[in-house]
Amino acid sequence: MVRVTVWGENVHERTEDHVRERYPDGMHGAIAAGLQRLLGDGVQTRTATLDQPEHGLPQEVIDQTDVLTWWGHIAHEQVQDAIVDRVHAAVLGGMGLLVLHSGHYSKILQRVLGTSCSLRWRNEGERELVWTVNPAHPIAQGVPHPIVIPAQEMYGEHFDIPEPDELVFISSFAGGEVFRSGCCFQRGAGRIFYFSPGDQDYPVYHQPEIQRVLANAVRWATPRVRGPVPEAPNAPRDWFL
Amino acid sequence: MVRVTVWGENVHERTEDHVRERYPDGMHGAIAAGLQRLLGDGVQTRTATLDQPEHGLPQEVIDQTDVLTWWGHIAHEQVQDAIVDRVHAAVLGGMGLLVLHSGHYSKILQRVLGTSCSLRWRNEGERELVWTVNPAHPIAQGVPHPIVIPAQEMYGEHFDIPEPDELVFISSFAGGEVFRSGCCFQRGAGRIFYFSPGDQDYPVYHQPEIQRVLANAVRWATPRVRGPVPEAPNAPRDWFL
Amino acid sequence: MVRVTVWGENVHERTEDHVRERYPDGMHGAIAAGLQRLLGDGVQTRTATLDQPEHGLPQEVIDQTDVLTWWGHIAHEQVQDAIVDRVHAAVLGGMGLLVLHSGHYSKILQRVLGTSCSLRWRNEGERELVWTVNPAHPIAQGVPHPIVIPAQEMYGEHFDIPEPDELVFISSFAGGEVFRSGCCFQRGAGRIFYFSPGDQDYPVYHQPEIQRVLANAVRWATPRVRGPVPEAPNAPRDWFL
Amino acid sequence: MVRVTVWGENVHERTEDHVRERYPDGMHGAIAAGLQRLLGDGVQTRTATLDQPEHGLPQEVIDQTDVLTWWGHIAHEQVQDAIVDRVHAAVLGGMGLLVLHSGHYSKILQRVLGTSCSLRWRNEGERELVWTVNPAHPIAQGVPHPIVIPAQEMYGEHFDIPEPDELVFISSFAGGEVFRSGCCFQRGAGRIFYFSPGDQDYPVYHQPEIQRVLANAVRWATPRVRGPVPEAPNAPRDWFL
Repeated sequence: MVRVTVWGENVHERTEDHVRERYPDGMHGAIAAGLQRLLGDGVQTRTATLDQPEHGLPQEVIDQTDVLTWWGHIAHEQVQDAIVDRVHAAVLGGMGLLVLHSGHYSKILQRVLGTSCSLRWRNEGERELVWTVNPAHPIAQGVPHPIVIPAQEMYGEHFDIPEPDELVFISSFAGGEVFRSGCCFQRGAGRIFYFSPGDQDYPVYHQPEIQRVLANAVRWATPRVRGPVPEAPNAPRDWFL
Repeated sequence: MVRVTVWGENVHERTEDHVRERYPDGMHGAIAAGLQRLLGDGVQTRTATLDQPEHGLPQEVIDQTDVLTWWGHIAHEQVQDAIVDRVHAAVLGGMGLLVLHSGHYSKILQRVLGTSCSLRWRNEGERELVWTVNPAHPIAQGVPHPIVIPAQEMYGEHFDIPEPDELVFISSFAGGEVFRSGCCFQRGAGRIFYFSPGDQDYPVYHQPEIQRVLANAVRWATPRVRGPVPEAPNAPRDWFL
Repeated sequence: MVRVTVWGENVHERTEDHVRERYPDGMHGAIAAGLQRLLGDGVQTRTATLDQPEHGLPQEVIDQTDVLTWWGHIAHEQVQDAIVDRVHAAVLGGMGLLVLHSGHYSKILQRVLGTSCSLRWRNEGERELVWTVNPAHPIAQGVPHPIVIPAQEMYGEHFDIPEPDELVFISSFAGGEVFRSGCCFQRGAGRIFYFSPGDQDYPVYHQPEIQRVLANAVRWATPRVRGPVPEAPNAPRDWFL
Repeated sequence: MVRVTVWGENVHERTEDHVRERYPDGMHGAIAAGLQRLLGDGVQTRTATLDQPEHGLPQEVIDQTDVLTWWGHIAHEQVQDAIVDRVHAAVLGGMGLLVLHSGHYSKILQRVLGTSCSLRWRNEGERELVWTVNPAHPIAQGVPHPIVIPAQEMYGEHFDIPEPDELVFISSFAGGEVFRSGCCFQRGAGRIFYFSPGDQDYPVYHQPEIQRVLANAVRWATPRVRGPVPEAPNAPRDWFL
């Protein structure tokens, strides 16, 4: 039983009619529903949003979260640093983290990766093809090659991230750009997966193949260990004998 | 002064008129000329071909080669295993190796990478865009983003290689496929760069941007050390004092 | 249920009394027993040895093997190339491979890694400490930090392997040398783990912590997919629509 | 001509007699002198310290710095966040960064790596052996295998860093611990090298082999490109044609 907290900025859904019609339960609601549909009893989901106290992420929620998913876009700066610190500490201690689409510019992704996470973009509803470059990877199991997304925002290279520990997906767009769209990292004991499809202007999170990727990623990012951020202990000679 | 040996299979150039017209000095000749043009006094090139004794690669030539470039296609099986052994030993000892286009299926690349190096392909003269994903990499210096190749054979994922030590270029094709087109590896002391553009049916090696990539790669792959394949010495206690 | 074939060269056990006394069922027997003890119903083991027809590895055995473990030392050259080809193809298709101790010089490890796999060595029964450098890795779960092996052959750097995809363990020896003793690689769809403790002159495979590492590695290397070595298909335009 | 700024916290040197005697010009002075000795006209050094305005690192100094070296220990918290931001931006734009010894806990290293950088330690003047695990790496050229440091503080695993892009050195200590003592990373366009030898209680930076490592690292980290932190441009369709 993996406990997943699906975090959503939930601004576009409240302020733009067409987004609310596409995602009446919010993008976070659609993401949670997809996980439930595919993982069933293997997952327990809850959602949290920016406008809740502590953004819906008090310490006790984080402590009960195995994997946190993160979608944000226009309100990255409104996320309190204290909450980012809390999420960061949990990741180092073992919590899994899935960062989605425009979350590339979230404080938490910049914090764990140490780079600007900048990229090129164009929002003209182009076809995106998501190609698997590591078919044996757990996140690629049961995923078609390629995933065809009829219309999406274009995200293109150069994507300013550290060389991923494992690269799983590369996307191309109708306009010719490419993007490293599925990237694995480890920081401390925590596994991090960045997955780029999912703009609010398109029904990407309703697409079963995308839900499959997220369900696989949740299982992949489930903690093997969970603890505090490690400190730097003094170690007397022969302490291990 | 980097000493480069440009190896060419040299079969298409001898058996197909349109290839000979495109590359009257062979593809190897065009590659060598591009290196000379860009590196000038910094490089000394020679060429070698399959039909020569020992494929033009006797031990003394290998010993005087800092970087070997390799283009082959329809005659991979005619390359003698003893020559592959010789090249392999030189790479482990520090010699640089650039494997080009259809050389993905060469014995030497399969030998150093340990995988099948299989891929998808389609030869319909599609536009290839070569995107830089690591703009600070030495091989990407002075290279436009993207390189536009008007017509090329399509090479697509899944490309069955180990995860590269460094990924420099990703290509997209008009048909939508993507390909990890510029990949760095190290084996023993030798640096290896695989670069996929360069089918015999198109004038790719006459294109200045492609020549720039190859010149950069030659410099990148120049040996820092050169020696025999390491053996496994017995080491008496405190041998290093 | 993971199906494991434990391959043993089985020469020292037959020709040296002290090895036979230490490992009356062979080192392969001790390794298989350790896996059974720790994984119980989760594993089904069989053993195979050099002196059997096809070294105990006919195609039907390989086809029914999820993970193959490999211990060899003085008879690497007696392993038939056809069997190495068979194991190699299975690894590329997804079979897991655990290479142990002196198996560093086996044909199969050299084949998949593409390097000499040379190292320094000294057999004086020194204490080896096996330190975990990635405590969140699946192979490190439940493993003490460090594992103390009272007496072992020293294996020291430089170890001529490609940079591992993941480094899990580093050993130190009483004489001061260090060694990358637990290294993960992927080739094709198959996961490979090299683990260096385990000389025939010491009871290493009877040690519970070592058995834990091997049990973890078996689970880690269990195939996610299994198929033939990929070929290079022609892909008509829009084949994926 | 590489322009190096050697940054020193310069607290131990001012407050502890034995450190001042060992390093009358500060550790930063000794590091700068070593670089000058080995790189001669190829390098131009300056030093900067915590107690200077803006810690000696105003924007114009950073702009004229190709490689910054960083030694800090007991005053990490006194480093202003604005200066850390400035250094971070310069690294992403291409400036090289060498972080030394107790700088593992500096704000700038935590910022670029995204982890706690914690480790085990014991300061009892133990012999440290620094082993090369990638002898072909530029930073290892001319470096003995191993470097013998007669007395040093012990730094041991687990070292909480991301898996390095390249691992160059592993140390062992008389007490048996190991440590990944020479680690390469890239963040944005900048190269980062962490090197652990160098406690203030021992004359490590006077040792020629250590100076050789630092000189090599300076050359390795010299920028290939230099620019601002990349932004995220909107890219109109076919912008590249």
